[in-house]
Amino acid sequence: MAAWGKRLAGVRGVLLDISGVLYDGGEDGGAPIRGSVEAVARLKQSRLKVRFCTNESQKSRQELVGLLRRQGFDISEGEVTAPAPATSLILKERGLRPHLLVHDGVRSEFGQIDTSNPNCVVIADAGEGFSYQNMNKAFRVLMELEKPVLISLGKGRYYKETSGLMLDVGAYMKALEYACGIEAEVVGKPSPEYFQSALKEMGVEAHEAIMIGDDIVGDVGGAQRCGMRALQVRTGKFSLLLSAVARH
Amino acid sequence: MAAWGKRLAGVRGVLLDISGVLYDGGEDGGAPIRGSVEAVARLKQSRLKVRFCTNESQKSRQELVGLLRRQGFDISEGEVTAPAPATSLILKERGLRPHLLVHDGVRSEFGQIDTSNPNCVVIADAGEGFSYQNMNKAFRVLMELEKPVLISLGKGRYYKETSGLMLDVGAYMKALEYACGIEAEVVGKPSPEYFQSALKEMGVEAHEAIMIGDDIVGDVGGAQRCGMRALQVRTGKFSLLLSAVARH
Repeated sequence: MAAWGKRLAGVRGVLLDISGVLYDGGEDGGAPIRGSVEAVARLKQSRLKVRFCTNESQKSRQELVGLLRRQGFDISEGEVTAPAPATSLILKERGLRPHLLVHDGVRSEFGQIDTSNPNCVVIADAGEGFSYQNMNKAFRVLMELEKPVLISLGKGRYYKETSGLMLDVGAYMKALEYACGIEAEVVGKPSPEYFQSALKEMGVEAHEAIMIGDDIVGDVGGAQRCGMRALQVRTGKFSLLLSAVARH
Repeated sequence: MAAWGKRLAGVRGVLLDISGVLYDGGEDGGAPIRGSVEAVARLKQSRLKVRFCTNESQKSRQELVGLLRRQGFDISEGEVTAPAPATSLILKERGLRPHLLVHDGVRSEFGQIDTSNPNCVVIADAGEGFSYQNMNKAFRVLMELEKPVLISLGKGRYYKETSGLMLDVGAYMKALEYACGIEAEVVGKPSPEYFQSALKEMGVEAHEAIMIGDDIVGDVGGAQRCGMRALQVRTGKFSLLLSAVARH
């Protein structure tokens, strides 16, 4: 374990991706990845601080945490950094009134936000909500704005569900960017601001933190650009990896 | 008219865009743009050769020509260069079996093509057909191919219908390009091969031809890169412009 010792020297905090690391989502709520429930438990018993840093944008934090707890994970809402509540804060700070193209499951995160007479568009992983009509409506809202603002909750290309690969919000963000000739603001990994807010919430400096995720761009690349260490996991290798981190 | 004389010197052939130049589409079949029926008639009585060069990919050539003839236009199928029949030829030549993400109205153009066990994806302006499920299906087909081939019938950002702006196929092409990490092959304007096939069909050299369209990228930029002249029209100015060309 000499290699591990070197890679983990000085680490005080661990950021964990959720989808593809703790569990694979699916219509039936998905299924935990083998060994991950125990690995999280062991990690939380260690001296390390733990934070869950997700781009999940179909579910509210409450719904996500409920689902994971039912699968046996030791996790609470206050330990989760998620793009919808982060976006909600940004909208309030900047006085933005969004047209929401989001999944019904995450709409509650925007309950306190004024959505009348929209002056921006917020898109998240809307799943089946990405109909032509809904995309065209978002497109028309943007085209009618003098300075179109498009906020995207993450920019993932795709993710894995138990039924197979699923197009993620990044594809639809690119569609609107191209159609409108604009560039979206991304709230979520790999945005540096997003990682920094997660670090702040756990009270750990970037050089003391390690990100564990399954996405080479969103998780690994993004964390490294912030000065953090990062490890990419592949499904099934997670428990071995986390055991090594917890033992360190 | 000295300026016109200079711009049109040596012109033997005129390529006309259809949507936004001859008519604005819409659910009820759309409506001809004021003065355009007469302008086309005058042009065809002149010494100039005329060809209609469209990116229309929701309708078969037969359907499109029928619609325009009912609106009073002097136009026949043999005078139209359209991306669906051009794609059909390419598929045959290269032995490609497409998964089709296209509007039902254009499916007949692919009637002779083997679509079993697909080894490429063809997308056109599918309108409401751009559901999440249909997009995800096309995405999965591409991801399962060793060398993913995506053919897009045009790459327009949007177009105008009587009801307002409509997202065009280009937005969805970008979505699939991003999700799969690939680059699409475009059949249609502004692809040079497409303009060249239209020129060949009318028997006119590029330097003897002028493209008249409403899209600065697809029509004007594309034609100019092929060595043609080009004019951009805005709705309502078409008849004046064509009168000048026909009189020249």
